[in-house]
Formats: sequence, structure tokens, C-alpha cells
Amino acid sequence: MALWYDEVFDDSMRLGLKVERTLFMGHSEFQRVAVVETTLLGKALLLDDLWMTAEKDEKSYHEMIVHPAMTTAPKIERVLIIGGGDGGTAREVLRYADVEHVDLVEIDEMVVKACQEHLPEIGSAWDDERLNVVIGDGIEWAKRTDLEPYDVIIIDGSDPVGPAEGLFDRAFYEGCANLLSDDGVFVTQSESPLIFRDVHIDMVRVMKDVFDQVHPYYGSVMIYAGGPWSWTYASKGVSPKEIIDERVGFIQEQTEIYNRDVHLGAFAVPNHIRREL
Amino acid sequence: MALWYDEVFDDSMRLGLKVERTLFMGHSEFQRVAVVETTLLGKALLLDDLWMTAEKDEKSYHEMIVHPAMTTAPKIERVLIIGGGDGGTAREVLRYADVEHVDLVEIDEMVVKACQEHLPEIGSAWDDERLNVVIGDGIEWAKRTDLEPYDVIIIDGSDPVGPAEGLFDRAFYEGCANLLSDDGVFVTQSESPLIFRDVHIDMVRVMKDVFDQVHPYYGSVMIYAGGPWSWTYASKGVSPKEIIDERVGFIQEQTEIYNRDVHLGAFAVPNHIRREL
Repeated sequence: MALWYDEVFDDSMRLGLKVERTLFMGHSEFQRVAVVETTLLGKALLLDDLWMTAEKDEKSYHEMIVHPAMTTAPKIERVLIIGGGDGGTAREVLRYADVEHVDLVEIDEMVVKACQEHLPEIGSAWDDERLNVVIGDGIEWAKRTDLEPYDVIIIDGSDPVGPAEGLFDRAFYEGCANLLSDDGVFVTQSESPLIFRDVHIDMVRVMKDVFDQVHPYYGSVMIYAGGPWSWTYASKGVSPKEIIDERVGFIQEQTEIYNRDVHLGAFAVPNHIRREL
Repeated sequence: MALWYDEVFDDSMRLGLKVERTLFMGHSEFQRVAVVETTLLGKALLLDDLWMTAEKDEKSYHEMIVHPAMTTAPKIERVLIIGGGDGGTAREVLRYADVEHVDLVEIDEMVVKACQEHLPEIGSAWDDERLNVVIGDGIEWAKRTDLEPYDVIIIDGSDPVGPAEGLFDRAFYEGCANLLSDDGVFVTQSESPLIFRDVHIDMVRVMKDVFDQVHPYYGSVMIYAGGPWSWTYASKGVSPKEIIDERVGFIQEQTEIYNRDVHLGAFAVPNHIRREL
């Protein structure tokens, strides 16, 4: 008997992967958490029955949320990750020797523990001494005024329902802007520009009120059905086009997807979005 | 009762769309042909149970297979389309006033008739007097030596199984090169670089033996699950980067996805493919 798990979008589209076995299922106070082994993409994490990440697909997401910021921010010593409980974003950040300290603020301890146990190939940098894992609310963290500024802030949350909802509003972006150094870079995942088109456009518009430079960028993630995925790059002045040669030269030796051309190409905005912004 | 249709890939992944009603189902001598109305993406064409195109998604494919060639080929008077039985590629080609003659060679008359009747929004240029529809074998057409050269040749076929199989081999590319003017441009869909990775890489390699310039390019098509989709641009010398200002300025007023930035960005090759080529 073949078992399939289908993520259903809007009761009208579904992406299914055949599942060999279930490795973990639990209910935290925030959401349902599951790790399954799929036939096609290896082990995969689901939150509230939505595909989050999978071993053989995760680099298409984690490289793209991390490296455009890390190759353009003048300084990358202090990094904040909100969300990112699978550890993939931290792993990519920690590839850079110039990184001195990473705060990873994830609200759901069950996600971190399940991923540490069952998805160590994704979160392969949990033991890095520069990484400080905080189980706590990223929205509250962004309100703090007692922290040294961060050089890079990365919001690696889930969709704007459930615990991640507050990661999509103006007050949160303002808090992040306060925590960001003057030449820092802020990046957030910003949903599908097609099946979450309104959310995507709204996020970019609100960010434009808070930051001087705001640039959505696009890529393909197999496990997120519905065409392209997006992230949005924002700063108080730093441009995503001014890539630091030494950094990109170093990192593109290690990446599966990301390189200088992919970086620059990702910032091309399709006409139907450009007309809205 | 909700009816869903799922395209299954390699018995391990499936993309399903909810179907409101079936508009056409038939068996031609080549394949099964169906047109259904989906809840999310409007009317859609399936061939041999694979999603081919859908009303609300088709521009992400048709704009990208057509405009990189049409905005860079010095002349665009004579165009050949092989496949393209839904009419979407011809519609995009015929937007340009400089186009004088288009031969569209589609092997399966049932596809053309079903699309003309049920998907007229996609094939909205069937009545254009510059369009010559030939029901016949594109592989045989590419062997002809009695034709004037074409300025642009576009291969808009299905996957390399069934009737489209011969559109993926060296002899076919050599025939197309013979039919192409010296400053002409050849483009073919070239499959998913992830789930049909071997086919994609093999196509690009074989084309490099036949053409001087060969450049794969990438985009996202919602109805083709599995991450990015690809097309490959080839020529006897024309570069995809030398975009003709007047043409791109004209066409990007009409497109949903395509513009100069999207054109240039699409040619960024991900690292895992670049290392193979």
C-alpha cells in the first residue's frame, strides 16, 4: 500500500509526496509538527500539515534566503534569525568565517528538537559555538531595546496564519529596523507572488514605508507548489546589487543553486508584480 | 463530491487540481487528449494525463518560450513553431508586426481542434492571416531542404516520451540548424532541471555540438510541479544578451511576466547545472 501526503491549497490545488514512513508526529502548544520520509525528496518537515522543507530540496530555499544578504551587507558579524527552527538558515549563515554571533529565535521548541533529532543533515551547524538558540517569541524579541544592533536579520517564518502571523505586520518590521545597524540588511521570506499574491504585495508595500531600499526577489522551491517563491531584501541604504566579490567568490564554491548570476537574476520582478508596486 | 485530477511523477510526487467539469476527452492516434475546467487555474489541457497548460498559468510558459528569441533575433519575418497545438506560442509570436509568416507544425489534429473549440482564450490568434497551420510531423518537417530559412524556430513539444520523443535528438537539432538563417535563433523547451535533470543536461550538451551559442534559461510554471522549468536558446552567433531595445520596449507593455530584467535574469544557471555543462 502506498501512503501519500497531500498539502492542499485553498481546496483547489494539492502537492503530494509519497511517504515511506513517519519519523515524528507531535502537537506543540503552537502547531502540529511532523517529520516524514518521502520517496522523492528524502526526509521532510511539515507544520500544521504544510510542507516546510525537505532534505533534497531545502537548498533552493535556504541558500536563497541567506546569501543575497550575506554577500552584500558590509559587515556580517552579528546575525539574527527569527524562525528557522530546522537549522538550515543558520547553517548557511555560519559558513562565513566573519560571522561572530548568531541569535536564532524560534518560538516552538518541538520544531527545534524534532529537527535536531530527525533532520540533522539540514541543521548541521547546531553545535557551532557562534550559534545562540533562543526558544522564544520573535515578535517580542524585535521589540527589545537592550540589544547591540545586528548586521543581518533574517525572518524565516511560516505562512501568516498561526504563530507566524505577527511576522507580517508593520510594527514587527519597525522593530526589526530598530535592531538593524545603519548598513545592515533585513531579509524575509515573502510568500508566493501568485497564490499568496495579495500577501506578497502587501508585505512589500508595508516594508517600503519602513525601509529605504526594498527589493522582492524570486526563485523556485519544489516543495512550495504554485510557481515561484519570493523573499524580500530591505535595508537603510545598502543595495542588493553591490555584491562583495570576495564573499560571493567564497560562497559560490559551496552552494548548489546560488551564484552571482542567480543572485542578480533573482531580483527581476515579473511585470504583473512590478505594476502593483 | 469534489473531483480531483492528479498528475503523478515517477510514482512519488503528484500535482492535483480540483476539476469542476470535463469539457473534452478523446483518443487520437498519438495520445489521450483532455480539456477540463479547474477551480484554481481555469480551463486546462492534458495530454496522456499530464498537465500541459492552463488559462491562468499559461503566460508563465508561453511568454518565456517566445520573447527571449523574438527580442534578440535581428530578423523575425519567418517563424517556425513545432508543436504548440494550444496556440499560445503562436499568439505571442504574432504580437510582433514584423512577423510576416508563421508555420505551425503540430502532429496531432485533435489537440488543435480541441484547443480551438475549448481554449480560445489561449489560442487567440488562430485567424491571423500570417499563420499557416500544418497538421504533420515536425521531425519530418525539420528534414526538408526546400524551405526558405527561418529567422526564429521554436520547439514547443511535450516530454520526450510518445510523439515528442524525436524532438530531443541530435538529428532533429541538425535539421533545425539547417532550416535556421545564419542570424536566426532556435529555442526549445528543455524540461525540469531537477526532476528531468539528465534529460535537461543531455539536451544542452547535444545542442552544444550543433550550435555555436547554447544557453539554457529558467522560470517557474505553476502547472509543472518540481521547481523550475527550463528552455534553451541556441544560435549560430546571436547572443541572448543583446536585446533589441525597440522590441523589448514594445512587448513588455503587453506581457504579464516577461520584461528586460526577467529576460536577463532567466539566463542565470544554477550551480549544480553549471558544474555539469
